[in-house]
Amino acid sequence: MNPTYPNKQRFWDWTMALAEISEPGVPYTRRSFSPLFMEGRRWLEQQMQALGLTTSVDAAGNLIGRLEGTDPNAKTIMIGSHSDTVPSGGRFDGIAGVIAGLECIASWKDAGKQLRHSVEIVDYLAEEPSEWGISCVGSRGITGFLTPELLATEHPDTKELLSSALKRVGGDGEQLYKREDVAAAFELHIEQGTVLETERLDVGIVSGIVGILRLNILFEGAAGHAGTTPMDIRRDASVAAARTNYLASEAATRIWKDSGYYLTATCGQTFIHPNASNVVPGKAELVFDIRSDDKATMEAFASELKRIAEESAELANVEVTEFQRMTDTYPVRADTQLMANIRSACDTHNIKAREMPSGAGHDAAFLAHIAPMAMVFVPSKEGVSHRPDEWTTAEQFEKGIAALITAVESFDQLN
Amino acid sequence: MNPTYPNKQRFWDWTMALAEISEPGVPYTRRSFSPLFMEGRRWLEQQMQALGLTTSVDAAGNLIGRLEGTDPNAKTIMIGSHSDTVPSGGRFDGIAGVIAGLECIASWKDAGKQLRHSVEIVDYLAEEPSEWGISCVGSRGITGFLTPELLATEHPDTKELLSSALKRVGGDGEQLYKREDVAAAFELHIEQGTVLETERLDVGIVSGIVGILRLNILFEGAAGHAGTTPMDIRRDASVAAARTNYLASEAATRIWKDSGYYLTATCGQTFIHPNASNVVPGKAELVFDIRSDDKATMEAFASELKRIAEESAELANVEVTEFQRMTDTYPVRADTQLMANIRSACDTHNIKAREMPSGAGHDAAFLAHIAPMAMVFVPSKEGVSHRPDEWTTAEQFEKGIAALITAVESFDQLN
Repeated sequence: MNPTYPNKQRFWDWTMALAEISEPGVPYTRRSFSPLFMEGRRWLEQQMQALGLTTSVDAAGNLIGRLEGTDPNAKTIMIGSHSDTVPSGGRFDGIAGVIAGLECIASWKDAGKQLRHSVEIVDYLAEEPSEWGISCVGSRGITGFLTPELLATEHPDTKELLSSALKRVGGDGEQLYKREDVAAAFELHIEQGTVLETERLDVGIVSGIVGILRLNILFEGAAGHAGTTPMDIRRDASVAAARTNYLASEAATRIWKDSGYYLTATCGQTFIHPNASNVVPGKAELVFDIRSDDKATMEAFASELKRIAEESAELANVEVTEFQRMTDTYPVRADTQLMANIRSACDTHNIKAREMPSGAGHDAAFLAHIAPMAMVFVPSKEGVSHRPDEWTTAEQFEKGIAALITAVESFDQLN
Repeated sequence: MNPTYPNKQRFWDWTMALAEISEPGVPYTRRSFSPLFMEGRRWLEQQMQALGLTTSVDAAGNLIGRLEGTDPNAKTIMIGSHSDTVPSGGRFDGIAGVIAGLECIASWKDAGKQLRHSVEIVDYLAEEPSEWGISCVGSRGITGFLTPELLATEHPDTKELLSSALKRVGGDGEQLYKREDVAAAFELHIEQGTVLETERLDVGIVSGIVGILRLNILFEGAAGHAGTTPMDIRRDASVAAARTNYLASEAATRIWKDSGYYLTATCGQTFIHPNASNVVPGKAELVFDIRSDDKATMEAFASELKRIAEESAELANVEVTEFQRMTDTYPVRADTQLMANIRSACDTHNIKAREMPSGAGHDAAFLAHIAPMAMVFVPSKEGVSHRPDEWTTAEQFEKGIAALITAVESFDQLN
């Protein structure tokens, strides 16, 4: 590893300084659009300016620190992630990817190195679902996915429109455009899973980011007295839902293993009506979260889920009255050349790496629609994320950032 | 049927008059211990007194109208049910059984008939679970089941003790005693099921009242990210709970059919934690309501349920951390002589009847511990109860009351 960079202590100190800008008493919370979020951004902007970057906020509300390259005809390399957090989140999810970008710039500055491409360090706006229920506001905004319908969403309490909130943070929903000047988009992020930890690896080279299909299934039968409704005349919606949940879990495991693609299916929410101990449930609702890096695999599972739900309904003498797609995003693939740049950077530095899909969504998933995209994962202790005990060591980050810097340098030389 | 009795119109008018004493805007609601409940009782007391009954409230808070018999050595025949309702209940559940008692007295008065036994028409206190969470307060109170522990229960909001509430309605928890002077206890009630309606019968001769076992099962696994936790390393508590719910329903049907006894098992409540769409559930709780007229059958099912829960937990790599009995009451049998009296009354009046278990709990279940007990069921339209559209026609009640009156007369003559 180049002795001058990355500087793991500098990265660590910056990360902790930003993490400490948190709602008092609820570490680590910096909700997008909040005053504390803006305070975090002022801190970020100061660091960017101290490194000689030109700062701005684009129409999608992204905070950008730009360093011009030596070749005015070369497109821009973007390196970034997000500084907002979930409520009571951790110190690294999002932040680490923005600070890793700053550390790239600082390392190059230390080494007196200039890149041919311009580089932008980006704090994408509101990656985590905000109170408006929309994730990745900033990365959607520069890739054509922040539609007028989404901008017209009202805050559930204050009724402020998302478009107004965007203006508050320096954006402008009417000036959005799809960027066409991006050469490559890189993002470093914690894994949020246990694959790297379990396999004692340093870095995950993300092969793709899963699409997410969220399905809502409503079963309707007939409520009845728990004591006076004999078993053979029941129309118990809860039993149909339970059979569906159980068999769907088996089916997801089977399809995952058979398809060769990544697949998860989670019945995270169950709502039983009336949910009283002495009443046969007349209604039951399940919400499934289905993720895969292959759209056909997702759809194969969705078809099987529908078959299971209908069969379960029939057996319980109830009806499937809703089978509705709520969220439906496509999986994206990382760029093979950028992945090769990361692989070769890992080889150079003796970093133990593997390719892996990302089961979580990221800003990079939107960037993939306008530019070659790549992500570097670093290990998460016990796979924990979105919690105050989220943890990755400075040494683990050092390896991830080294892979990132060297990969960007390779890309810069070869393109 | 004896032309003078029962008088179906009188019964109907009384029932409607009492039903109308309801919380304004939430028909039909007369919660035990409430001012409206007391208003209903004042109305009942007036009717009892107009029929020449001596009224009193016993230590258990039961309103009693007593008619002395001709034989001072004969024990007392009790006929009653309850005048309290669930919130937004119906016009008949409970009320009809009290008014049916009044109609017996009125019919005998019309016919100039005197009974050898004294007769008490009883409005048992608080049969429906009140805000204190305890059912059958009055019938427990005269049979030895209203313990000091139950009396010490606090109202969840006002913190009033059940013992204080009992005093408010004229009872006294310190003066409770088990009655030993009861010759027989009769109760007429709506079926709350569809057996009579389906089989086009007039009357159900209750063979026994189910015991109720309420079981709480807690599954604990590990919460995880829905996208980054691969299927094979999950510890999804919801999947274990779902498999348990589904297989328990199948097992209950099988054991019911094999045992020859009545059995229902209802998973009425499901609680998933955190119940968020993108989180693998770390905890899942099920509440089962198990009823049978045979204790061994209930226990056989409970053992099978435990086996299923543990097997499901093992398959999902989670733990069963609670398997707890909440309510556990014994089934009781109706008295065979009283059942024969009802059967013979039905034959006399050409009333189509069958024996059947009661899947719901009733005051009579407690009375069975101190005296021979019998119940007469009348049909419920579509099995609906505890709802404003609960319905039984005046003609259907007429047949049930005729069976009751004649059965009581037979008992009076033969004992």
